[in-house]
Amino acid sequence: MAKPTPLSGFPEFLPADRVVEQQVIATLSRTFELHGFGNIETRAVEPMDQLLRKGETSKEVYVLKRLHDTDGDAGMGLHFDLTVPFARYVMENAGKLEFPFRRWQIQKVWRGERPQEGRFREFTQADIDIVGRDVLPFHHDVEVARVMVEALSQLARPDSIGLPGFRLQVNNRKLIQGFYEGVGATDTDKVMQVIDKLDKLPVDKVRELLQSDAGLDEKQADLCLQLATIESEDASFVDAVRALGVESELLEEGLSELAAVIAGCASVTSETVRVVADLKIARGLDYYTGTVFETRLTGFESLGSICSGGRYDALASDGRFTYPGVGISLGLSRLLVPLVQKGHLTGSRQVPSAVLVALNEEESRPAADAVAQQLRASGVPTEVAAKADKFGKQIKYAEKRGIPFVLFERTDESGASTYEAKDIRSGEQVTVDPATWTPPAADLRPQVSASSTTDSKEISK
Amino acid sequence: MAKPTPLSGFPEFLPADRVVEQQVIATLSRTFELHGFGNIETRAVEPMDQLLRKGETSKEVYVLKRLHDTDGDAGMGLHFDLTVPFARYVMENAGKLEFPFRRWQIQKVWRGERPQEGRFREFTQADIDIVGRDVLPFHHDVEVARVMVEALSQLARPDSIGLPGFRLQVNNRKLIQGFYEGVGATDTDKVMQVIDKLDKLPVDKVRELLQSDAGLDEKQADLCLQLATIESEDASFVDAVRALGVESELLEEGLSELAAVIAGCASVTSETVRVVADLKIARGLDYYTGTVFETRLTGFESLGSICSGGRYDALASDGRFTYPGVGISLGLSRLLVPLVQKGHLTGSRQVPSAVLVALNEEESRPAADAVAQQLRASGVPTEVAAKADKFGKQIKYAEKRGIPFVLFERTDESGASTYEAKDIRSGEQVTVDPATWTPPAADLRPQVSASSTTDSKEISK
Repeated sequence: MAKPTPLSGFPEFLPADRVVEQQVIATLSRTFELHGFGNIETRAVEPMDQLLRKGETSKEVYVLKRLHDTDGDAGMGLHFDLTVPFARYVMENAGKLEFPFRRWQIQKVWRGERPQEGRFREFTQADIDIVGRDVLPFHHDVEVARVMVEALSQLARPDSIGLPGFRLQVNNRKLIQGFYEGVGATDTDKVMQVIDKLDKLPVDKVRELLQSDAGLDEKQADLCLQLATIESEDASFVDAVRALGVESELLEEGLSELAAVIAGCASVTSETVRVVADLKIARGLDYYTGTVFETRLTGFESLGSICSGGRYDALASDGRFTYPGVGISLGLSRLLVPLVQKGHLTGSRQVPSAVLVALNEEESRPAADAVAQQLRASGVPTEVAAKADKFGKQIKYAEKRGIPFVLFERTDESGASTYEAKDIRSGEQVTVDPATWTPPAADLRPQVSASSTTDSKEISK
Repeated sequence: MAKPTPLSGFPEFLPADRVVEQQVIATLSRTFELHGFGNIETRAVEPMDQLLRKGETSKEVYVLKRLHDTDGDAGMGLHFDLTVPFARYVMENAGKLEFPFRRWQIQKVWRGERPQEGRFREFTQADIDIVGRDVLPFHHDVEVARVMVEALSQLARPDSIGLPGFRLQVNNRKLIQGFYEGVGATDTDKVMQVIDKLDKLPVDKVRELLQSDAGLDEKQADLCLQLATIESEDASFVDAVRALGVESELLEEGLSELAAVIAGCASVTSETVRVVADLKIARGLDYYTGTVFETRLTGFESLGSICSGGRYDALASDGRFTYPGVGISLGLSRLLVPLVQKGHLTGSRQVPSAVLVALNEEESRPAADAVAQQLRASGVPTEVAAKADKFGKQIKYAEKRGIPFVLFERTDESGASTYEAKDIRSGEQVTVDPATWTPPAADLRPQVSASSTTDSKEISK
């Protein structure tokens, strides 16, 4: 068979890069579970009627068809996000779940888009959601924000993954809708859609559209544009909004909710992970009803929002109950694939092995296997040389794979044998007892190394 | 929306059952990595020409089609195993991989079969393989067997998952093919196919087919049937084969390889995990060329082989190199879904939380959040009560979810407050410092509880 070529839009990692993804997933899941979020995994497919409930992404669905079925497709498609399957899972199992139900879910999703730079057709998302039955108190909005901020902070720690940092931008639908109402707008959804174009169009063009398309007068349009410029890392945005002189009950509710999210996150922010009230954030999807989130990766803003979500008052409804929720979805592939492909992140070695047990001659393989088992029993990932070879070649074998230690047997004149562990990076060599020796903790697993992000322009173009 | 009904053949777990699967995956991956196997994840789809290279399962492929593409399908299908994508991955990245290349891979696969009892259309497999470039010494056959036996032993440990036990049945294609040649068979493949029917047809019927279809005479057929009855947990099968008086070079090679696998596994077998030379095992797939493996779950033999594999001399070939390999694939869903569905295995609770921080009144939520953060900093999964409530209700809340500890604040007459941790199973209650207290290690994570398997007949029918 000829050498296969990569499929555009279906990213895959080499082993050393997969180490990065594995450690990111481990960090996320650990944080989520510390906060009481349980894991679920849903099937990859949903019935087409579920997938097509929201018009927006329906064109991007991959439909399944059994190869020899000539009479049409299987009535199922691959899920394009983790929200639709989660809503279905909650409905299907509502009688067996306890509410509020917290779940984390990290899985692949598929979108049949035409491939283009930065767009994937298969990618991994990491979602957290809290769902209630009929009611879900507002404090859960603060909770999901805090949990995700904590998870991102873990990823940004230099001794963990070392990602450059994040800026979580929070807004509230009630706030902006209440403001537009207070301004006198009749079609607040339209105003929101136009304001949402601020990152693509010049301000003057948006002002024009607010008048031509959303039916605002010049003064109203100006107020809406001024609202969109407000941002603050503390509660000062409240005064800035009030200074615009617009009033409505819904606006007040939104202001107080947004202030609560900002205040609630204050204790978990850091130098690298910031939480900002940013009043231009709207989120296109129409099911959000309160808090909305977007997140930018510091220095890589051109990637767009890599972590978004919000409050939805009806994730699902079965006639008897409605299920309100609040959640955030982290685009794991969107975050990692460019950083890995450009070499900003990689694993320190391409195999888990911390130790290679060298082999002088094939006959001593059983003894080498036994030594390796002793190390594994102490939790040390270990492999035995694939073939007996000169010592220099075995060092090279370890070097190529990034294995830090080579263990070998040394027999003295009396025939007694000892084991020596050689750190091939420093050349340092010590006599060890394989039953008790372990490499330094930092060498036990591959580490993720993050290169400086000063050259990040390369990717943020 | 109406309550959705489960899709037949697409099993999903409730949160407490997903705990079982999570812990099985963690146990497997830990064992694989201790042996130097690195993880990869391949995309879910492959080009149709790759999927159809082997005729056998082609009818079961799910083909993808973009919803609005009227001009046919996307030329891609969902993978039906992890071997085809692995072969493609090796070929695609051969220049960047170091050989021998050891990988583990745990992912879902899809087969568009008509749904029936015990057959899934989406299921998870756990594969390990070692692949070489042009050469792969035989000792790697012993290695993969040992690694999988060790992994299964971990799963069978009562303090781990507590699965009932496993019987790994090993044979060797060279052995049986060499024996059939030595007997004088001309169509050894046909003999193998007929012998493979021994678990479905009576011996007399097989004897008949060996003569009518495989062209053997009665004596030859008898010898082949006698070979198939031989099994042993040690090297004694070698003498039993020799006693049949059949000779060939290939047979000798097979005997010595099989003996080496059995001897190599001796140090990792246990009461519950046995390794047996079983000379009736053939494996239907024609790409195996030496060692072959099948595995039965003790007491659940009717599930068939839940873990199979073998040596293949050409996983792939690109004209310049061939890539021989040896691997085993564990059917994770096949193993777990029936055990979980019948209630033999479940998680001890449906949330990760080990502690619920109670809440007297909504105003003290920030204080409760701060206490919860202290516990989380000590690695204790913790949630805060969803709403302020009477203490009795909070205990019930914890009970329903299986959370073992409730932490609550107690204020004495002087106004000074202390924290009490109540073990709701025993009712025992102690004053604790949230900054340092942690529950017993066994309560930190949900445990997997395995019910006695004496009632296993229920499922093995």
